Amino acid sequence: MKDQAPMNGAESVVRSLHGAGVRVCFANPGTSEMQFVDALDRTGLLRCVLGLFEGVVTGAADGYARMADVPAVTLLHLAPGLANAGANMHNARKARSPMVNLVGDHAVRHRDYDAPLTADVAGAAAPFSDWVKTATSPESFAADAMEALGAAMSRPNKVATLIAPADIGWDAGGQIAPPPAAPEFAPLEEAAVERAAGMLGPDTVILVSGRVLETPEAVAQLQGIAAQTGAKALAPTSNRRFDRGAGRAGIARVPYPINMALDTLKPFRRAVLIETVEPVAFFAYPDRPSLLLPAGCEVATLTGRDGDGPAAVAALAERVGAQANRSHASLPPAPQAGAITPETIATAIANALPENAIVVDESVSGGRDVWRQTEGAPPHSWISLTGGAIGDGIPLALGAAIACPERPVLALQADGSAMYTIQGLWSQAREGANVTTVVFANRSYEILKIELFAVGANPGRSALDMLDLDRPALDFVAIAKGMGVPGRRVEDVAELQRAIADAMAEPGPFLVEAAM
Amino acid sequence: MKDQAPMNGAESVVRSLHGAGVRVCFANPGTSEMQFVDALDRTGLLRCVLGLFEGVVTGAADGYARMADVPAVTLLHLAPGLANAGANMHNARKARSPMVNLVGDHAVRHRDYDAPLTADVAGAAAPFSDWVKTATSPESFAADAMEALGAAMSRPNKVATLIAPADIGWDAGGQIAPPPAAPEFAPLEEAAVERAAGMLGPDTVILVSGRVLETPEAVAQLQGIAAQTGAKALAPTSNRRFDRGAGRAGIARVPYPINMALDTLKPFRRAVLIETVEPVAFFAYPDRPSLLLPAGCEVATLTGRDGDGPAAVAALAERVGAQANRSHASLPPAPQAGAITPETIATAIANALPENAIVVDESVSGGRDVWRQTEGAPPHSWISLTGGAIGDGIPLALGAAIACPERPVLALQADGSAMYTIQGLWSQAREGANVTTVVFANRSYEILKIELFAVGANPGRSALDMLDLDRPALDFVAIAKGMGVPGRRVEDVAELQRAIADAMAEPGPFLVEAAM
Repeated sequence: MKDQAPMNGAESVVRSLHGAGVRVCFANPGTSEMQFVDALDRTGLLRCVLGLFEGVVTGAADGYARMADVPAVTLLHLAPGLANAGANMHNARKARSPMVNLVGDHAVRHRDYDAPLTADVAGAAAPFSDWVKTATSPESFAADAMEALGAAMSRPNKVATLIAPADIGWDAGGQIAPPPAAPEFAPLEEAAVERAAGMLGPDTVILVSGRVLETPEAVAQLQGIAAQTGAKALAPTSNRRFDRGAGRAGIARVPYPINMALDTLKPFRRAVLIETVEPVAFFAYPDRPSLLLPAGCEVATLTGRDGDGPAAVAALAERVGAQANRSHASLPPAPQAGAITPETIATAIANALPENAIVVDESVSGGRDVWRQTEGAPPHSWISLTGGAIGDGIPLALGAAIACPERPVLALQADGSAMYTIQGLWSQAREGANVTTVVFANRSYEILKIELFAVGANPGRSALDMLDLDRPALDFVAIAKGMGVPGRRVEDVAELQRAIADAMAEPGPFLVEAAM
Repeated sequence: MKDQAPMNGAESVVRSLHGAGVRVCFANPGTSEMQFVDALDRTGLLRCVLGLFEGVVTGAADGYARMADVPAVTLLHLAPGLANAGANMHNARKARSPMVNLVGDHAVRHRDYDAPLTADVAGAAAPFSDWVKTATSPESFAADAMEALGAAMSRPNKVATLIAPADIGWDAGGQIAPPPAAPEFAPLEEAAVERAAGMLGPDTVILVSGRVLETPEAVAQLQGIAAQTGAKALAPTSNRRFDRGAGRAGIARVPYPINMALDTLKPFRRAVLIETVEPVAFFAYPDRPSLLLPAGCEVATLTGRDGDGPAAVAALAERVGAQANRSHASLPPAPQAGAITPETIATAIANALPENAIVVDESVSGGRDVWRQTEGAPPHSWISLTGGAIGDGIPLALGAAIACPERPVLALQADGSAMYTIQGLWSQAREGANVTTVVFANRSYEILKIELFAVGANPGRSALDMLDLDRPALDFVAIAKGMGVPGRRVEDVAELQRAIADAMAEPGPFLVEAAM
């Protein structure tokens, strides 16, 4: 090394991240991150994916992490850039996805002045991060980055944000840091297995999420436990990832609408939790409870979010002598020519889905039947909006495609939600991501109309006007074209099925606007 | 009132805001704001403008406030929605624009549960707000809103964020609250006038911003003071609003590039500040100072940001016996046919500008000559990016057009920056806003290339690739069409001038993509 220039802080971080297995950086850099752009360029160690908006960056990092099971790193610019990234950091946090955000700040000496871009970076990070630290020297910067990576990979996975004043990246003195220790699961208590086993019966619900749903054998064992004991297995409404489809075991989810959720859980007197917590309503409503399990329901945690869910399921299955039990769901009949409705679009998608696809679900109200109809579709991974902050689908699909370039990605995308991070289409085109986006074009915030009635309103024209997106109508094919993504609008459901199947078989992104 | 249903909290807020002069609500509501949607609908008191993304909402509110001089109110959804709004709250805050944000939160009883959308709303508000409060009862909710409005209108104007748990909006008990007291300026000290007058001379710079620049007579008096004493008047790089053009007085600005800024201020030994503070570099750079005035420069504040700048200028003019001094700048020659460059686009814009226009400037590097070339253009208001958080231009133009429906709006829009809040075009179409957007299509983050060299890098292909937007090329005409805004791409500068003039003479939005 003696003939080389001393390493700066930014380069030490890039080299240490690479040493720890990080391979991709999703970025929307600004002036305070130019030393990272320079270090990424000089080292060539990480693939850099540019987003035109920070919500694309963090949503893509989430999609990548869900499929790759290691974090992508993001590169963000100061407090306003971090704020733009916040909604999809929130979704990643609620998914328990591992994420490391590197956020540039002004040089230390510059922070005392009220420069135009000065704002509280750590304050902007806190609401959407599990771990926040500000680097203090080039020498310790890479060690801080490894601490962030360790936090992100700890159980459950977390969102870690490391703030990097510009001069700590510029200045010489960077020291490569070793990778963090491998994370450990919270131990499974034998007593918890005993207690859970003793609770199983026809009035028991087993609620599972996390890594259980990413392990088809675990879900099959879980359904075996249910078949053996009469208990019912359910997943929360939204989950980080579920590997499902023909030949695997399915699982029903707690419905989103409050009354349906309460009705679904009403029969149960006992609940066993595996890698999840007591289910709670998305929102509070007048005269409805916040907690969804019936009052007096006995609740036991077999293992928490920090535990090894598949191991817990295996222990429980062994304890009750259950065998794996797979789904026998079959494909619904392919749709005939006709209008695209929430019912028919579900059968079109089920019949169009190729083997080994990744389905990204931000279909909101229009996609309500797709989950059920795709249980017998070819095996696929299903990743969906977890934190309720709409604007996640297009970026999640980008990140998933970069994590798994050999797998076709199908993004089920509500139209209103699509507009929050529509810029992600450009990054899909730039990266040649094999993503087929189906826009559920019902031209309204349909879900909010339902919610408006749910709070007891009797809406007039101006209220409904606030929830309609048809004045003017959004032309998603034109928008996609403007960002380099080819597309077409389809009004017939049989044609929709063909359009989806064709697009998924071709490389690169494509957008299908499904007129509903 | 005795025969009517009791008023809920949301309705009391809407009625009180209207009573205090608020007329517009820019909104991107969700479930936790449905009682506001209902109250806005039932009362019909405020014009509601829907944004498809929260950055559009707060940017438009900022543009509205800068031109209307009263705040628009925004309606936002929980912590992630507030985060999406944050970058343009930041720009509004740095502009000292008055803004009131109403942000829904979960019902009080629901906040203890980790629901999908639960996050720290007040924490997300703090970095981008001057004032934050959470409502605690329907009875005091409207009084809280009036306190927020009072904070927003206090001197200097501020960004005020009021968080509203959903049940406090639903529940009965709302009480109309009286408008806040009119704000008062900090008094002008006679001694400060004496001191400033004694400092004026050829090595003195008078730095002014705030309301001075919005008052053509004050700027003319200021230039009279400069002419009388040999002092030089300068404005900061970016300002809330400047009313300028033929027959008014112009003013030069401190340049953005660090070396030019230092060179501009190097000659001065004394500085008088009026409604501004000591100028600071946008960013810190290796081997460059953060403060731009030369070391040892004597600095006196005639009046701070909380003072009445025009009154201070008038007092100083009287004290030194100065007369108003207006600009004699004339229009540059109209461009002949040829390529669109930073030089030629400036003359095209100057010659296309109609009387009484509003110019919104987020042109970044491509628009560097426009300010100078438009000094002799017909009188106009100039509003620009203030906080450095790009993605402000399209929303600012929307809000300005809603504040001043009789004035044509010209948005000078860098292409990279446009993509952060591109959804605002749809709201422009929906509202029939008379906005002509000129996209400076240089297909790169040109400013960042300059910054990359400024930190001493010797960028390779992958670094430059991160700053280029040409793979694929963005087709802004297609994107605009997809959102209901007609447009055209222009490659010749004389044609550009005609296209801009034609579009500004027509009602409704139009987009011109200027190929640079």
